[in-house]
Amino acid sequence: MTEDNGAPDGQPKGVMTRRVTVSALEEYLYKPLQVLDHGFVRLIDYMGDDNAVVQAARVSYGSGTKQVREDRGLIRYLMRHRHTTPFEMCEIKFHIKLPIFVARQWVRHRTANINEYSARYSYLDKEFYIPQPQHLATQSSINRQGRGSVLEGHEAARVLNLLQEDANRAHDHYVEMMNEDENGEVLRQDRHGLARELARMNLSLNFYTQWYWKVNLHNLMHFLALRADPHAQYEIRAYASVMLKILKDWVPHVYEAFIDYRVNAFELSQPALSVLRKLVGGKPIDQKGSGLSPREWRELMLALGLEKT
Amino acid sequence: MTEDNGAPDGQPKGVMTRRVTVSALEEYLYKPLQVLDHGFVRLIDYMGDDNAVVQAARVSYGSGTKQVREDRGLIRYLMRHRHTTPFEMCEIKFHIKLPIFVARQWVRHRTANINEYSARYSYLDKEFYIPQPQHLATQSSINRQGRGSVLEGHEAARVLNLLQEDANRAHDHYVEMMNEDENGEVLRQDRHGLARELARMNLSLNFYTQWYWKVNLHNLMHFLALRADPHAQYEIRAYASVMLKILKDWVPHVYEAFIDYRVNAFELSQPALSVLRKLVGGKPIDQKGSGLSPREWRELMLALGLEKT
Amino acid sequence: MTEDNGAPDGQPKGVMTRRVTVSALEEYLYKPLQVLDHGFVRLIDYMGDDNAVVQAARVSYGSGTKQVREDRGLIRYLMRHRHTTPFEMCEIKFHIKLPIFVARQWVRHRTANINEYSARYSYLDKEFYIPQPQHLATQSSINRQGRGSVLEGHEAARVLNLLQEDANRAHDHYVEMMNEDENGEVLRQDRHGLARELARMNLSLNFYTQWYWKVNLHNLMHFLALRADPHAQYEIRAYASVMLKILKDWVPHVYEAFIDYRVNAFELSQPALSVLRKLVGGKPIDQKGSGLSPREWRELMLALGLEKT
Amino acid sequence: MTEDNGAPDGQPKGVMTRRVTVSALEEYLYKPLQVLDHGFVRLIDYMGDDNAVVQAARVSYGSGTKQVREDRGLIRYLMRHRHTTPFEMCEIKFHIKLPIFVARQWVRHRTANINEYSARYSYLDKEFYIPQPQHLATQSSINRQGRGSVLEGHEAARVLNLLQEDANRAHDHYVEMMNEDENGEVLRQDRHGLARELARMNLSLNFYTQWYWKVNLHNLMHFLALRADPHAQYEIRAYASVMLKILKDWVPHVYEAFIDYRVNAFELSQPALSVLRKLVGGKPIDQKGSGLSPREWRELMLALGLEKT
Repeated sequence: MTEDNGAPDGQPKGVMTRRVTVSALEEYLYKPLQVLDHGFVRLIDYMGDDNAVVQAARVSYGSGTKQVREDRGLIRYLMRHRHTTPFEMCEIKFHIKLPIFVARQWVRHRTANINEYSARYSYLDKEFYIPQPQHLATQSSINRQGRGSVLEGHEAARVLNLLQEDANRAHDHYVEMMNEDENGEVLRQDRHGLARELARMNLSLNFYTQWYWKVNLHNLMHFLALRADPHAQYEIRAYASVMLKILKDWVPHVYEAFIDYRVNAFELSQPALSVLRKLVGGKPIDQKGSGLSPREWRELMLALGLEKT
Repeated sequence: MTEDNGAPDGQPKGVMTRRVTVSALEEYLYKPLQVLDHGFVRLIDYMGDDNAVVQAARVSYGSGTKQVREDRGLIRYLMRHRHTTPFEMCEIKFHIKLPIFVARQWVRHRTANINEYSARYSYLDKEFYIPQPQHLATQSSINRQGRGSVLEGHEAARVLNLLQEDANRAHDHYVEMMNEDENGEVLRQDRHGLARELARMNLSLNFYTQWYWKVNLHNLMHFLALRADPHAQYEIRAYASVMLKILKDWVPHVYEAFIDYRVNAFELSQPALSVLRKLVGGKPIDQKGSGLSPREWRELMLALGLEKT
Repeated sequence: MTEDNGAPDGQPKGVMTRRVTVSALEEYLYKPLQVLDHGFVRLIDYMGDDNAVVQAARVSYGSGTKQVREDRGLIRYLMRHRHTTPFEMCEIKFHIKLPIFVARQWVRHRTANINEYSARYSYLDKEFYIPQPQHLATQSSINRQGRGSVLEGHEAARVLNLLQEDANRAHDHYVEMMNEDENGEVLRQDRHGLARELARMNLSLNFYTQWYWKVNLHNLMHFLALRADPHAQYEIRAYASVMLKILKDWVPHVYEAFIDYRVNAFELSQPALSVLRKLVGGKPIDQKGSGLSPREWRELMLALGLEKT
Repeated sequence: MTEDNGAPDGQPKGVMTRRVTVSALEEYLYKPLQVLDHGFVRLIDYMGDDNAVVQAARVSYGSGTKQVREDRGLIRYLMRHRHTTPFEMCEIKFHIKLPIFVARQWVRHRTANINEYSARYSYLDKEFYIPQPQHLATQSSINRQGRGSVLEGHEAARVLNLLQEDANRAHDHYVEMMNEDENGEVLRQDRHGLARELARMNLSLNFYTQWYWKVNLHNLMHFLALRADPHAQYEIRAYASVMLKILKDWVPHVYEAFIDYRVNAFELSQPALSVLRKLVGGKPIDQKGSGLSPREWRELMLALGLEKT
């Protein structure tokens, strides 16, 4: 599919604005950052910066916030106390190309605006995701959703081969059924073409789709907290990592607070807090007597540096 | 996958409740109503009835609504004036089995609650959608999103064959890559299995998924207005039709108003209204002078019964 | 309360950006447009323009939209068919000062982001809304929610006097109870002050509050369709009118389509459509035989220009 | 205002249903539980129970959840890992009467359905909130949003007197301006009445309003986590406490997990985690060297039982 480059016509060098701008973000505009084999993240527009968060918070809390002079301190205060609405005052818009199975996870975040390419209306290109060999993980035996070690040699080759062959064949048949090429030209004049909305069902979940995705800063961070997490599937994490970098350049104070109070935070349940009090008080305690499940116990010990991964 | 039948244990005949009940809906509970070849819609729970809408409206509008004595009249008034909040006071929950490409359209309605079966965690059965021959439509030449006539004979057979073969092969390879069967038994002891979250990408969009879908009455009607519409793709329309029947039995007054003021309503734009005034006033008017596009003109003439489809 | 002027520091003349800009909107930035006696609407930021809607639609509908060459035509098509998601790709942010009773209606639009000044944390100024004499409407005798004629002479004076006196007294007592002035200075050293979060309950609903309000273009139009409508209360309509003007300058094509297909559109119910078919076909029809209520009949006749207001 | 009791006509003893029921909740139905001086919380309807959460989770995680046999364990797992969607499968509906300033905080939770009594359409009763003497808190000198000690003697009497007098006067003038009583009877035939939508602006924020409020279990818990918290204003906390009790009877396993993993949980930021590691490892550490603000340090010490309140 031919793509509009998203840039406003006739202003390659830019125009004047009195709005808030972030020079680091201007650099990202309209350039696709590659993700996976054929995907990308492309910044289309943004609204606000660190200061826009502060500005909204100061309206909410009025003269009271005079005490908190420093912007960075106020942002950390907001993040720490989960005062989320000031973070909703910034907005960002991306153009993203991603495999359908990734899009299916992504779309569950209901608080964003989406315009997706529709295979009901248009031809879908022969572009599908094939993992790099180092990502051909086996099913984890301990963790239902995780990955274990990596397939190697013949086994890896066999998998890559199957994925490749099936996707190629699926697309060939998709085209044959529609009886038209990517330009809408009829392939065989003596045949009818199946409606696009039906033919597309033959494509597999690793085919690429694309969309515009617009979200506010609060919801973006919620998305990133879940999808940049080591428990997230590698393929969506690859997108989240790229967006984390953009986040850092866009709103550096917010990013820093987000890392300290969300990404690297550890939530202590009430039973875990009891364990901790004993530990700190020098009283003996083990998993059995802790009220924690073995898994919760282990996670706590890991977080405290009392056990190694 | 083995399914919980969704019914509360030990109350096959029911228990007493002081809540609002709708006897017609009690009949639907827990029974799958078949849709397409392997799909279903299964009512799991509901809250409220026609009267719950009235009750909420009477709180909103207070003593003022005393004038509108009759409940049916009040419901029609609310629907007509798009007073939507009273319709949000009813809720319904379904268990639905549907092809992935249908789920992808469906999920764009962001105002519902969803719990979908996850192929990241679990084995996906070898169940995929194959259209009935009478639904093998060709691409409409006039309408990008519509369907035209139906494929026949050899052409139809070829399409059905391709869809069937590709889906079968995709699933066989999916199983081979995971190296496990539906019960989680390892197939070949001398091999490793690819992680489920990766293997699933080989499945095509006609495979069935399933989910719990819970929505309020207002948003359900918004969904049905779009998806039971003749312009909607047949496959999602098949689900919407079944749900329309349930709607009718659940809230008959709301249903009737919905049909009169939404489903069968026709919105006149300002230019169309000008045309109409001339028509009603007996003044001559044709498409060229109307300010309407040929398509808008035609739709208006059709709605007025001045032209035949 | 002292206000940040919202403008980014040190860029009074603007800076270069490669983002989409709308020169007409740049003029509005940061300037309060007065509404009612002490309120305002102040544009803080915006994202996107007419073309951003087109851009999103073209990604959704892909190569298919090549046929619709012209942007204006595409926007009208989207509006007419209620393809709402492309309009979600634009965003706008306002700083608004408004009476609390207006804010209470406004906040029911749940799809916007809000940061409101909090009287729990901060002192609320002695600013309250007093209607202009020409807006001192009597209760409509026909329409429960409407206004009738206007109070005059003694009656008007009495109402204005009561409103003024009660609001003044309420604020004086508010300050007395808190025992602090607007700068947080204690008024009488020999007394304690009631907590702000409690004292505020003495203020009446015509006191002014303020907030940052951020919304996407689709939801903004939904808000305006309801609140710029003649049935909306005058005081909220005054805000909607100002925002309509900004809308027109921001996205002129969208605005035009919005007026034609929403604001000035008329929805024909199924029974109204039947009436119309008879009218157009020259068959006799009156209210009694129409299936329409007297009110629906009258609205239809008015819309068709067959009756005068 | 006369109130519908909300109970379905003619089924005082109940009818049979095959839906999920919770016998403990049936007892609450339709009975107002008093809150503050004139407010109440009244359960109108509910959907689902502990098992409905489990059911949805088992569909999502499929056969994988067979390992987690026990329902209670699964619910704790979901809560702990913030798998929120299964909790969205339950729904609850309340009728609530509350002061307007409480409603203004409450309505900021945008994810619920609301139908509020409208003073635009109807007469508002002379019912307003006057705090109990023990809740007449002074402004906290340390915490901007908190309350300090309690007003006493003359000071308390003065405040109560002002609140009472002003509210009484405001309502008297409200009635005088409208020139109608609660039954809509004209008071003085020789006068016109100001429109209700205008007259209401004279009422103060402690007047009572009422609404139907419907929310899913996930969003209810989010509301309760914020509003039953000691930092929440007492008046909204009074409502949250009553709803917490209902929550406990409705979904006892969910409630228990909610208390352990939300209400009584403590979130460790990255810097706090570093402090903890040192503490547990027996290394010396004080606030200055900790990277924590004095307030963060104190909260951590309190949570660990190393300091007293």
